[in-house]
Amino acid sequence: MTRIDLSTISTRAPEDLDRDEAERQTRERSSRISELHRQLVAEKEHAVLVVLQGMDASGKDGALRNVFGDCAPYGLRAVNFRKPTEEEFDHDFLWRVHKEVPAQGEMVIFNRSHYEDVLIQRVHGWITEEQVDRRIASINAFEKLLQYDNNTLILKFYLHLSEEQQREELMERVVEPEKHYKHSDADWREREHWDEYRAAYEDVIARSEVPWHIIPVDQRWYRNYLMTDIVLQALEGLEMKWPELVTNRTWKV
Amino acid sequence: MTRIDLSTISTRAPEDLDRDEAERQTRERSSRISELHRQLVAEKEHAVLVVLQGMDASGKDGALRNVFGDCAPYGLRAVNFRKPTEEEFDHDFLWRVHKEVPAQGEMVIFNRSHYEDVLIQRVHGWITEEQVDRRIASINAFEKLLQYDNNTLILKFYLHLSEEQQREELMERVVEPEKHYKHSDADWREREHWDEYRAAYEDVIARSEVPWHIIPVDQRWYRNYLMTDIVLQALEGLEMKWPELVTNRTWKV
Repeated sequence: MTRIDLSTISTRAPEDLDRDEAERQTRERSSRISELHRQLVAEKEHAVLVVLQGMDASGKDGALRNVFGDCAPYGLRAVNFRKPTEEEFDHDFLWRVHKEVPAQGEMVIFNRSHYEDVLIQRVHGWITEEQVDRRIASINAFEKLLQYDNNTLILKFYLHLSEEQQREELMERVVEPEKHYKHSDADWREREHWDEYRAAYEDVIARSEVPWHIIPVDQRWYRNYLMTDIVLQALEGLEMKWPELVTNRTWKV
Repeated sequence: MTRIDLSTISTRAPEDLDRDEAERQTRERSSRISELHRQLVAEKEHAVLVVLQGMDASGKDGALRNVFGDCAPYGLRAVNFRKPTEEEFDHDFLWRVHKEVPAQGEMVIFNRSHYEDVLIQRVHGWITEEQVDRRIASINAFEKLLQYDNNTLILKFYLHLSEEQQREELMERVVEPEKHYKHSDADWREREHWDEYRAAYEDVIARSEVPWHIIPVDQRWYRNYLMTDIVLQALEGLEMKWPELVTNRTWKV
């Protein structure tokens, strides 16, 4: 287990990176991602699970749009995990999550995820530290199951935002009519717990067996540039092939 | 891990047990089980998962009827796991199982279960031994999750049948019109693998962290007698209470 200290990791792009060139490369990669996604659906040998986590206003929705927006809707699903329903509360925390995992030939993006159950619940003291330990062990076992038993590629992203940039993003939601729908007083209250959330993220990232990618997101174009790079490389690593021609196919019984 | 040798365990009732007296006690217990089940539903603090496994014709359906038949249908579900569908095959082996686990205030009986994925698939060599090891580790982690994160009581029964009694039971399905619907040629073919199934069961029972109850089932009345005893004691062990009176209750928001 490698401890990490998020405060030592920049939330911004390197100074010498050219934004126009980065955006050009992002568009190319996004288009290539959509091609490989078509192949994923056709080949039906792999499942792909993308997990997006980050503080409020860290740009999870935008990541979804910009990294996966070129993919065709068939074989692609985005799942938002909100406050659990009463039925979900009556089950273990992975119950609602396991239902939504990708089938072979499918890419699923979790906008928030099972990690909330060791983040918000921990920060507010709704669960004990013993429960946190058990849940982290369960999460590791769960992700391992998806990997070995369903050939699932798991890509986890922590969208790394600065406290100052969060204030700006949250203010925009108050000021801009097209962003009003995203405003929630609760986000401002949760902001009071910034340091506790950061500590909880650092711990969870360190104890996860499937590694996290930490993405500086204060500039959204840099987020898109990095994420498209990671997703594209991972999909290329699957070495997918277009299936051979099959003739005389009949319905399976 | 304690190895077991099923061939040394009798499949029959002790000679000195009086059948009439046993059946009287079974009826009493079954009625008491239904009372505790009502309390389980009312209290909504525990979930109960019963797993029934055994060779073909070992009496899983009959166990369901005779042990849980007095319980009210609300808060009770029996789930049959048959050959996986195409959609189920496109996910990890626990995906279809996790969906069906009991909520708090519910008792669910699995007629066959996730254990088939380390039994029939292993006997026929459809999975490697490495896959078996990983699946058993996943099963142990999964059952632990249900226990600690949703207060689930797990009761696992291996219905222990003799090879001779299986022949009789299978023959009855050919001879008796009311049992024709249960007949399947496949059962006679699977019977050829008797020793391999027994070895697979012995291994799985030994490596399961949540213990199994081994129930001699050649005489069905003895199966009912033993199972009602175990289920009743386990439910009593939950020390459930009827909830206090709540007045002025409003709909939760």
